[in-house]
Amino acid sequence: MNPVIEQLRSHRSIRKFTDRQIPRDLFEAFIRAGQAAATSSHVQAYSIIHVVTPENRAILAELAGGQPYIADSSDFLVFCADMKRSTDAAERAGADVVRGMTEHLLVASVDTALMAQNIAVAAESEGVGLCYIGGIRNNPAEVSKLLRLPDHVYPVFGMCLGYPDQQPEVKPRLPLESILKTDYYQDTDDAAQVDAFDSEMRRYYQQRTGSNKDTTWSEQLKPLFTTKVRPHMRTFLQDRGFEMK
Amino acid sequence: MNPVIEQLRSHRSIRKFTDRQIPRDLFEAFIRAGQAAATSSHVQAYSIIHVVTPENRAILAELAGGQPYIADSSDFLVFCADMKRSTDAAERAGADVVRGMTEHLLVASVDTALMAQNIAVAAESEGVGLCYIGGIRNNPAEVSKLLRLPDHVYPVFGMCLGYPDQQPEVKPRLPLESILKTDYYQDTDDAAQVDAFDSEMRRYYQQRTGSNKDTTWSEQLKPLFTTKVRPHMRTFLQDRGFEMK
Repeated sequence: MNPVIEQLRSHRSIRKFTDRQIPRDLFEAFIRAGQAAATSSHVQAYSIIHVVTPENRAILAELAGGQPYIADSSDFLVFCADMKRSTDAAERAGADVVRGMTEHLLVASVDTALMAQNIAVAAESEGVGLCYIGGIRNNPAEVSKLLRLPDHVYPVFGMCLGYPDQQPEVKPRLPLESILKTDYYQDTDDAAQVDAFDSEMRRYYQQRTGSNKDTTWSEQLKPLFTTKVRPHMRTFLQDRGFEMK
Repeated sequence: MNPVIEQLRSHRSIRKFTDRQIPRDLFEAFIRAGQAAATSSHVQAYSIIHVVTPENRAILAELAGGQPYIADSSDFLVFCADMKRSTDAAERAGADVVRGMTEHLLVASVDTALMAQNIAVAAESEGVGLCYIGGIRNNPAEVSKLLRLPDHVYPVFGMCLGYPDQQPEVKPRLPLESILKTDYYQDTDDAAQVDAFDSEMRRYYQQRTGSNKDTTWSEQLKPLFTTKVRPHMRTFLQDRGFEMK
């Protein structure tokens, strides 16, 4: 296994950071590495808001559901799917532009994620830790207002970056056979594979260093799926010009 | 710049491959590296269909709009957003499950993209080239039928993997200032930055080794945004259980 693959496989989310700041040239190198990711039709449908004002970071930490590391990390980024820049450019070049297609939502969300993951990999290659913050979608309208996001731009997730002040274990993943299928989707073995994974996760949760608990993967999923999770997302996206036509 | 960041920054899509096959242990290592990417609430909302039957690859090459490298690459993967496995698991564990939220579409699409980008990085670390295939969404219903995708699973994009038989230049990206904003979204300099980038892209298109042309970024975007791109996506997703509630 080469060092890059080894690095990828040793990822874990970091939620406790030292006071050490990421040097600015390194930070820029991470962003440029992000930009180098593949992008659909070269659209580059993303913008990053680098939140530096402490007051705004404190507000975002609350809006994301009380996640103090948003304020405590060296750098906090909000990754936005951005269909404004490219459609504005096409419009300035004389195009009669159609906006708000469902496809645009997908393209921009995927472009944003590919870029962000490159930033994550670049950061970890320099010993910087990170965690993604999906909680930014808890209150996306307030987040958008705070960051002054225009129409056709929406916050997909955040990312905390900084030097780790904790060394959590790598969290297990589903068995490879469960997610990799040959030629056709079949899930006849799915229940058995999930059972085995549940046992593995129970051992992991019992034995891990921080916040031990007696639970499984399936049990952990239950509260996620028994409620209408983030029911505001549809209306929020439509209000911001992602009309999903 | 460390070797990992250097590797990330030298990405370019490869669409011509040698006959050499990727060794199976390496292929598996790529997939496991993909699984190690961050995943929202540990849901791992993805499945990969590894399409090995030549007939199916030929059909997919056509369905994706005539992309022969889908058939010619060492390995072709269809990355699927999968909300079935996790919601089924929660249901088996006794949850009264709510499906079809817009949030689920986002979570699964982002999870899938993060995993795929890790696979891309792992592959390139071994000298393997790749290109993403968004064209898989040209005919997603036919693709889903061919791959026997169940409800709550949809094909987000494909990926060709193989040893490069071409050495295309790295394609320029928007200036960093254009996509990275401090504290607030502002785009007062956007038109000027895009103008400069248009000039850079014109030089790139004129000088690159393959298929020279006289055009700019903005010009290239025009046809993308003057039509209703993939207008079937909304209905397709709804039909497959991604109801965007």
